[in-house]
Amino acid sequence: MSEKKIPYKIYLEESEMPKQWYNMRADMKNKPAPLLNPKTLQPMTQEELSSVFCEELCRQELDENTAYFDIPEEIRDFYKMYRPSPLVRAYCLEEKLQTPAKIYYKFEGNNTSGSHKLNSAIAQAYYAKKQGLKGVTTETGAGQWGTALSMACAYFGLDCQVYMVKCSYEQKPFRREVMRTYGANVTPSPSNTTVVGRKILQEFPGTNGSLGCAISEAVEAAGAQTGYRYVLGSVLNQVLLHQTVIGLETKAAMDKYDIKPDVIIGCAGGGSNLGGLIAPFMGKQLRGEENYEFIAVEPATCPSLTRGKYVYDYCDTGKVCPLSKMYTLGSGYMPAGTHAGGLRYHGMNPILSQLYDDGYMKAVSVHQTEVFKAAQEFARVEGILPAPESSHAIKIAIDEAMKCKETGEEKTILFGLTGTGYFDMFAYARYNDGEMVDYNPTDEEIAKGLSGIPQIPQNGF
Amino acid sequence: MSEKKIPYKIYLEESEMPKQWYNMRADMKNKPAPLLNPKTLQPMTQEELSSVFCEELCRQELDENTAYFDIPEEIRDFYKMYRPSPLVRAYCLEEKLQTPAKIYYKFEGNNTSGSHKLNSAIAQAYYAKKQGLKGVTTETGAGQWGTALSMACAYFGLDCQVYMVKCSYEQKPFRREVMRTYGANVTPSPSNTTVVGRKILQEFPGTNGSLGCAISEAVEAAGAQTGYRYVLGSVLNQVLLHQTVIGLETKAAMDKYDIKPDVIIGCAGGGSNLGGLIAPFMGKQLRGEENYEFIAVEPATCPSLTRGKYVYDYCDTGKVCPLSKMYTLGSGYMPAGTHAGGLRYHGMNPILSQLYDDGYMKAVSVHQTEVFKAAQEFARVEGILPAPESSHAIKIAIDEAMKCKETGEEKTILFGLTGTGYFDMFAYARYNDGEMVDYNPTDEEIAKGLSGIPQIPQNGF
Repeated sequence: MSEKKIPYKIYLEESEMPKQWYNMRADMKNKPAPLLNPKTLQPMTQEELSSVFCEELCRQELDENTAYFDIPEEIRDFYKMYRPSPLVRAYCLEEKLQTPAKIYYKFEGNNTSGSHKLNSAIAQAYYAKKQGLKGVTTETGAGQWGTALSMACAYFGLDCQVYMVKCSYEQKPFRREVMRTYGANVTPSPSNTTVVGRKILQEFPGTNGSLGCAISEAVEAAGAQTGYRYVLGSVLNQVLLHQTVIGLETKAAMDKYDIKPDVIIGCAGGGSNLGGLIAPFMGKQLRGEENYEFIAVEPATCPSLTRGKYVYDYCDTGKVCPLSKMYTLGSGYMPAGTHAGGLRYHGMNPILSQLYDDGYMKAVSVHQTEVFKAAQEFARVEGILPAPESSHAIKIAIDEAMKCKETGEEKTILFGLTGTGYFDMFAYARYNDGEMVDYNPTDEEIAKGLSGIPQIPQNGF
Repeated sequence: MSEKKIPYKIYLEESEMPKQWYNMRADMKNKPAPLLNPKTLQPMTQEELSSVFCEELCRQELDENTAYFDIPEEIRDFYKMYRPSPLVRAYCLEEKLQTPAKIYYKFEGNNTSGSHKLNSAIAQAYYAKKQGLKGVTTETGAGQWGTALSMACAYFGLDCQVYMVKCSYEQKPFRREVMRTYGANVTPSPSNTTVVGRKILQEFPGTNGSLGCAISEAVEAAGAQTGYRYVLGSVLNQVLLHQTVIGLETKAAMDKYDIKPDVIIGCAGGGSNLGGLIAPFMGKQLRGEENYEFIAVEPATCPSLTRGKYVYDYCDTGKVCPLSKMYTLGSGYMPAGTHAGGLRYHGMNPILSQLYDDGYMKAVSVHQTEVFKAAQEFARVEGILPAPESSHAIKIAIDEAMKCKETGEEKTILFGLTGTGYFDMFAYARYNDGEMVDYNPTDEEIAKGLSGIPQIPQNGF
């Protein structure tokens, strides 16, 4: 370690926190394709979307020209309780790796939800409250989104109904209890509280449920109650918009110390964290002002960017949500049961899909054992026990740093550390016991998923 | 909420972090009584202590005159990875309570060990490494101390052997996995790896173990291996010394904004967090420069200050450690199985015992259901899900704020939020399900514990 003028952790002052979210679409020449109504196959209108989502959120979803959206003061006040999140200089990791690279990570795990999900949950809860709603419904798999939404709803006094995939409900009782402690109503899905749930239970007695089924139940439950709307924790453009607070804070902190990253790395599931982190940097690139290398890291078991197609597809297994043009493996694709639940989504946010298709971003896929190896190495020197999802970014950051060691380059590497792994110790136990295995989907499995993509016009709106 | 000139979270700059720990004993007129050798009943010498503990730590344990100890640079570098911890202005809690009081809390949960324990773990690991030791042994109950020590040992490349009370080992497999992820060797206690463990297993087949037994095993294991020493996470004066980093940071942050607390509240188990938080404020009081009201909060099930005696007693159930003059319920006292495992200790740090006996500090005891009620109320408005232990302080902070509401006083209340409750969701579940019960020890139960205190001279060294 040489001079150490840069502190281990850079915190912005409260007064330096972003007051606006940034909408990358405003600077994109090729805009992402519009959402389609699954019944008419025509672009969704604000009115159509508003029957499912909150009005202001629909506006944010559809607006591709406004570059900056003001963050309402109430949301900024909530942000102040757990933000700014630290931008950390990984001095100890650098020393361990003996690399000339300079490694930074933006750590989003310092809040009770344990991840960046809270950034959008509080925004969505705020707009629901402002619209005069009684409550919101949602689904949750691993539980981080459900936890974040429960916290946000508790803060604004909104009812929160969470459909939790049954196997998670049973395997992660502690996640469930955190949500209950925040006053949420948590139902294992499929349940007999909805038509679709009863139907699935009848067809598949004893099923463990799926995210697709939980989404369908949550959407139905929102529609069946007056004053309720459905909310979602990733994939949508509105969510990515809220998550730009991550990148905006990061860029402000780096600018303060005259740091310019060469490589920016994020794990990629639905894309909200990755998109949020890279947004202001990508904006510079889109406007031709600066250049960066962006790398999306996805699990080998769910390689939507690296092995998927860029076409219109259903966003959910139940096919009740709008169609989206995105990199997808097909809404029926069933990823192997790896431990990064937050990355097991068949598609990718439409903005990121377009940027990737236009060559603005690279993508790589990695196996879970190498991810946990990187996670453990990171934890032992940097202290933080990372979530399996976040550890995908760690793995590639370490790889990039080791390349620098070979070449002698002093690259500045930035990655997003989206959350902590406190509720993932079952996965760590499998790794510690040497029982974790990798799986590479065969070409046939990928082809089978892709064959489920609907045959609809892919261009021309 | 009026002006809000004070930010939600006050972070010191890295350059403002404490460079020394503060030893309250230097400013005490009545020094705490010395530790006694359990065999000779004479004050422990540095040499005697050094057979069990690291040399530098023994010096810190015995030194009652040096006011400030330099924090070695290696420890300060590690502190920089997770410190300074935020001093939070509880704006949202104040608004919820509609109190004129100003509430602040120092939050020590933003690190992977989930509590303040890491502050001393890294110091103890550092001195062990510096002494050229191969490793350390310790015991852990709830698991926070074991986790903190595992992290510290991983950082310095020391072997870490943790004896974990068997019922915790089985009930908290995730805590165990965090320790293993950091490379620690975790053994359920009693075990057949030690003489004392085998003896206990023979006498009580199928026993769930106890902290007292785990201590005895850890001490024996340290003695049986060349290059090993035993380390402890609370009660001792050395631990309290390291924890003064909490109070020193708090005071520096408050001074920066011209804030002076009227009431300072901490939960009290072995006393390290409470002592660490109050130290620099108590120093002012001891030197006659300023006045504060200090409140120690203990569980009604383990009321060492409020119902114990100030006498020499054994520090451990196995009676292998030095005798200490302290407020105690007797080393054989068995507290009811309440959920704040970190506060279920029969005694109290000697410095705090003396200060309490001299009237510098108040103490109150509270029941767990009211503690969890306060915890939930706090979590819903302040976001953070607190540990059951920390929530004892929250309960009394809320009570004090409500008194201000009645009287109209604008008191400034400071409390220590020692950690998060992510690994305590079983307890929260019981509370959420309305199944949590309180227990008030009978006078007979207290008397039975006190009757186990050894009959030795209580004065005159």
